Amino acid sequence: MSTATPTATPTSETEIRALIDSWLKAVHAQDIAGIVSDYAPDILAFDAIAKLQFKGREAYQKHWEACLAMCPGPGIFEMHDLQIAAGEDVAFAHCLNWCGGTDANGEEKASWMRMTAGYRKINGKWAVVHEHWSAPFDMESGKALFDLKP
Amino acid sequence: MSTATPTATPTSETEIRALIDSWLKAVHAQDIAGIVSDYAPDILAFDAIAKLQFKGREAYQKHWEACLAMCPGPGIFEMHDLQIAAGEDVAFAHCLNWCGGTDANGEEKASWMRMTAGYRKINGKWAVVHEHWSAPFDMESGKALFDLKP
Repeated sequence: MSTATPTATPTSETEIRALIDSWLKAVHAQDIAGIVSDYAPDILAFDAIAKLQFKGREAYQKHWEACLAMCPGPGIFEMHDLQIAAGEDVAFAHCLNWCGGTDANGEEKASWMRMTAGYRKINGKWAVVHEHWSAPFDMESGKALFDLKP
Repeated sequence: MSTATPTATPTSETEIRALIDSWLKAVHAQDIAGIVSDYAPDILAFDAIAKLQFKGREAYQKHWEACLAMCPGPGIFEMHDLQIAAGEDVAFAHCLNWCGGTDANGEEKASWMRMTAGYRKINGKWAVVHEHWSAPFDMESGKALFDLKP
């Protein structure tokens, strides 16, 4: 038994929640510097589209820039059912995301995505070392399933 | 500064690696009891196919049973580039998986998938509380991308 502070401190969870809140604000503002500011230099990202993986902050930032260019204007990006497991210096989180945009006719086009992120506390500061975004696909058609509900 | 054992103990990583090894053996043996034995009762799983999420071990086990029924006989299931971040009682891991099977003509049909898992140590024993499996999709066609290389 250790007499040190218990590992799963409320503080760690609070810190991760603040990091996510700040990141979400940056996504809403389409502020690329804010989006990548807590990504570790060696982040490994599994994004929902285009490539199997993005290695490193620079590669992932370029991908984010391409994604934001695809969806100019006010997009839809809501985080739901966020759950955080936070230890002293390792944490992860997962949530569902209602993602999309509004088309030229003002019609909302959005679908549910899933997100998992991994964090490490490095030199006293939490960094995102891993992200995983996806939509499930249908085995028969091989198509991503955009009409699923939670 | 704490004088207690550092959080990111080699032991935690070793324990997680053993859990993953044991799970992988169960997948290869199509041993459903072994596959689910370290899943937490309230695991939340984002699988690559069919549904947005599976809530709880029972629901996820049923899905695993359906998946194994779809792919009888010796399947292909290789884990690559496994990385583990393990603290005292929270951990996560991610890897690439070469998944598939052999068709009636003996031809290998496989593709690269991505996996992220989250773990908590509960009553001194690690449990899988989260899994996320996926293939990325193509924005234009909406189809899952099965020909990508790492």
